[in-house]
Amino acid sequence: MPDLIQDGDFVFIFLDGKRNWIRRVKAGESFHSNKGILAFDDMIGRPFGHKMESHSGIVFQVHRPSHTDVQIAMGRNTQIIYPKDAGTILVQASIAAGSRVVESGTGSAALTGILARAVGPAGRIFTYEIREDMYIGAQKNLTKFGLTDNVTQHHQDILEGIKEENVDAVVLDLATPWLLVDEAHRALKSSCFLVSYSPTIEQTMKTCKAMSEEGKWGMIKTLEIFQREIMVRENKTRPTTWMVAHTGYMTFARTMSVEE
Amino acid sequence: MPDLIQDGDFVFIFLDGKRNWIRRVKAGESFHSNKGILAFDDMIGRPFGHKMESHSGIVFQVHRPSHTDVQIAMGRNTQIIYPKDAGTILVQASIAAGSRVVESGTGSAALTGILARAVGPAGRIFTYEIREDMYIGAQKNLTKFGLTDNVTQHHQDILEGIKEENVDAVVLDLATPWLLVDEAHRALKSSCFLVSYSPTIEQTMKTCKAMSEEGKWGMIKTLEIFQREIMVRENKTRPTTWMVAHTGYMTFARTMSVEE
Amino acid sequence: MPDLIQDGDFVFIFLDGKRNWIRRVKAGESFHSNKGILAFDDMIGRPFGHKMESHSGIVFQVHRPSHTDVQIAMGRNTQIIYPKDAGTILVQASIAAGSRVVESGTGSAALTGILARAVGPAGRIFTYEIREDMYIGAQKNLTKFGLTDNVTQHHQDILEGIKEENVDAVVLDLATPWLLVDEAHRALKSSCFLVSYSPTIEQTMKTCKAMSEEGKWGMIKTLEIFQREIMVRENKTRPTTWMVAHTGYMTFARTMSVEE
Amino acid sequence: MPDLIQDGDFVFIFLDGKRNWIRRVKAGESFHSNKGILAFDDMIGRPFGHKMESHSGIVFQVHRPSHTDVQIAMGRNTQIIYPKDAGTILVQASIAAGSRVVESGTGSAALTGILARAVGPAGRIFTYEIREDMYIGAQKNLTKFGLTDNVTQHHQDILEGIKEENVDAVVLDLATPWLLVDEAHRALKSSCFLVSYSPTIEQTMKTCKAMSEEGKWGMIKTLEIFQREIMVRENKTRPTTWMVAHTGYMTFARTMSVEE
Repeated sequence: MPDLIQDGDFVFIFLDGKRNWIRRVKAGESFHSNKGILAFDDMIGRPFGHKMESHSGIVFQVHRPSHTDVQIAMGRNTQIIYPKDAGTILVQASIAAGSRVVESGTGSAALTGILARAVGPAGRIFTYEIREDMYIGAQKNLTKFGLTDNVTQHHQDILEGIKEENVDAVVLDLATPWLLVDEAHRALKSSCFLVSYSPTIEQTMKTCKAMSEEGKWGMIKTLEIFQREIMVRENKTRPTTWMVAHTGYMTFARTMSVEE
Repeated sequence: MPDLIQDGDFVFIFLDGKRNWIRRVKAGESFHSNKGILAFDDMIGRPFGHKMESHSGIVFQVHRPSHTDVQIAMGRNTQIIYPKDAGTILVQASIAAGSRVVESGTGSAALTGILARAVGPAGRIFTYEIREDMYIGAQKNLTKFGLTDNVTQHHQDILEGIKEENVDAVVLDLATPWLLVDEAHRALKSSCFLVSYSPTIEQTMKTCKAMSEEGKWGMIKTLEIFQREIMVRENKTRPTTWMVAHTGYMTFARTMSVEE
Repeated sequence: MPDLIQDGDFVFIFLDGKRNWIRRVKAGESFHSNKGILAFDDMIGRPFGHKMESHSGIVFQVHRPSHTDVQIAMGRNTQIIYPKDAGTILVQASIAAGSRVVESGTGSAALTGILARAVGPAGRIFTYEIREDMYIGAQKNLTKFGLTDNVTQHHQDILEGIKEENVDAVVLDLATPWLLVDEAHRALKSSCFLVSYSPTIEQTMKTCKAMSEEGKWGMIKTLEIFQREIMVRENKTRPTTWMVAHTGYMTFARTMSVEE
Repeated sequence: MPDLIQDGDFVFIFLDGKRNWIRRVKAGESFHSNKGILAFDDMIGRPFGHKMESHSGIVFQVHRPSHTDVQIAMGRNTQIIYPKDAGTILVQASIAAGSRVVESGTGSAALTGILARAVGPAGRIFTYEIREDMYIGAQKNLTKFGLTDNVTQHHQDILEGIKEENVDAVVLDLATPWLLVDEAHRALKSSCFLVSYSPTIEQTMKTCKAMSEEGKWGMIKTLEIFQREIMVRENKTRPTTWMVAHTGYMTFARTMSVEE
């Protein structure tokens, strides 16, 4: 028995990699795009994962939004940590069901959502954002997609201090992460991960340098991830022509206990 | 108050990227390597995340094993799905806290462990393995690392059928995944993900072809992931000389509801 | 004493990676772009490699066109073999000063030009093109850039046969290269290179299969090349966001002598 | 009529990517490897590009050494500029038949050989090496492979000055290339290329910084090249598992004329 679409549900309407939308189903209303119109009433009662034809004959797929669909929709028009990097952060930093994670900055909350789904109801995300407009936009995004249950939003400069203690991971996407490594160390459990994501190599160098002092951090490692899509078409199989060559460098390190 | 290492705990003993070990702490015994000996009694009562010097003066780091440490330890000497690919599978296929996931083959259970951690106590992994030696080895691995609570192991050829229904994801690492796409469709909820991991392009082509028939699958997409490590050292920053150039292609597709 | 720009010379006018032009200097006329106007009279008598400011205050660089500048200008609006691949072809196939090389198809002659420069006056390029419009366009391009001296253009389907013998290399960019491997073998000196460039993996597979029969080819090897640009800017150093992820696969093989 | 192997010729004896050798044919002697013995007398009079079976039944291919075979043989056991990078240097810096090129350091002369072949008898390579052992080793290598005709070796620290003027390109593989950019500018024709190859990002940054001062350099661009090999085998086609992830960054810049 498939899940049926109901009034008020979110749907992911997909045409291709560039033309796709997340919309809330509203009885009596329609989805409009320059590729055609779909009446929401025609979706209601049908299962997630079906094809719909617009009046102009274009066939759309209608899906339940996946975690990355939501991530990308939240982050549209802003710089976000891409799914390829988010996956590496989860796996390399042992973020999973039940983890308590500090994040900063919240930004559009695109990564916050992925983290919140990953840690589930037994975990919690504590996310810091200094800019008021971002803080409010993130709140709207999290509310809209039902991701507030296990997220605590702080409208605060994380450089002023982390309120939480004994967290399982700290994930930073900051302009000056090196200023926070000591504070992150204080907030983390021992032998747990700090992840710092930076677009430039200079930021990465400064962060690694700050970490390498005082013996507080172990197993410091910097990774970059490339994702290539292969178009598998009969007798025309080939990678896509363009790919994202760079998003950011991710530095991982584990807290060393500094015993007195 | 840091977590203190106790008798019976697992520790991850780290020297460098190639020389590292997961061992269970046993009071009165020692860890032996060709780089020196560490007495477990010297670890007990100290926090995870500390440095220990062997008698020969080599400094080791002693950590709580991370998810990927365990994944790699389980898979040692076998072909496993790498952390870089595992992260992409989790994020792209919306596998997170609470998900119910079918996996085959179990292999060394290296990916099973990552999946089990990701879905947590509210989720469950159903993993199929046809070879008895692998089934038993996986059972030992999962038991050893305390990963059995939310894992159901089937010693069975998955091509004979999937016992579960309405699962949230199916993850295949099979020699002939194209033979299972119909059965996977039957087992999956609508608009949920099948992931097929294959080392060769021919396997990938056959799987995509099988999926493209009958309109049962939407948004079929094949990805490959590269991970590069950057050695950040003052005035010597550069990527590592060698990297893994290929592990496998990952094909993702969502179930389309086939309405009658 | 620098080379001075003269009436009739080609210049490469550069603003950035996307906005750059090759133009022939004409006394009394001007270069027009939406970024401003440059009078050719102001270029004449100045050295190649200088900066010129348009009336609107935009600063352009004026250079002698490099081999790749010409290659890209010739190939604009068509699919060409990129510089990154052309370099690998030259080096891997031992194409250098004095080589005699068969090429097909000519296309826009973008690669023909690179090959002609590489082999110099002591070598020669024999290039085949079946389509009349391409043949004529290539002729215009080669004439315009002064590349006709060591190039023989054939307006002919190379599948009908290669007219030359004992050549040092054969470079194919054809839809069906596997149909030509025997003929290429006949035209090549022993222990010399065939290079086949194909966008799809199926073409590559068929070509390798055709080569692996009859023991006529040795050291068959397929490569792909990625080129990434690093933007080195003080405190902002990072790779470019986008890169070309795929142009084509290049298969190299050496003729084995088939002795009777 | 194929080229026949004669006493005194060099041959490239190939088993696979790791086991291959360049040897000089000597009548009455043999090639010995742990995979078997080949009598040179059995090679003499046969064409380049044939298969030979050792007494132990292993089949070797016997080829005319290609430019990259020689490059790799010269550079064995040292750090060399790889073929993938050499190809990009030739094409991007317009080095071709007839070019006059300054290079430093000579090292094993592996790149010198590629450059010498590329520029041919009408061009010339001027190569600088400060270390006497390297200078002598390079001389032996160049003599052995018949590459001395158009190469001038300087046993000199290039930082003390470039003896040549009006050269077409300067190619640097130095520890401190930023100290040479002014001198390179003086030696180069206007609107011609300096290429600097450096393993680390700090070297690359310093070189770009030195170039960006005083407006002497235009179109500064830093590239890195990845080369991936695809193993095309029926039903087993896949990229090789490992690849070289990093050799060096290549910075290209063109001389701007500094007019007074």
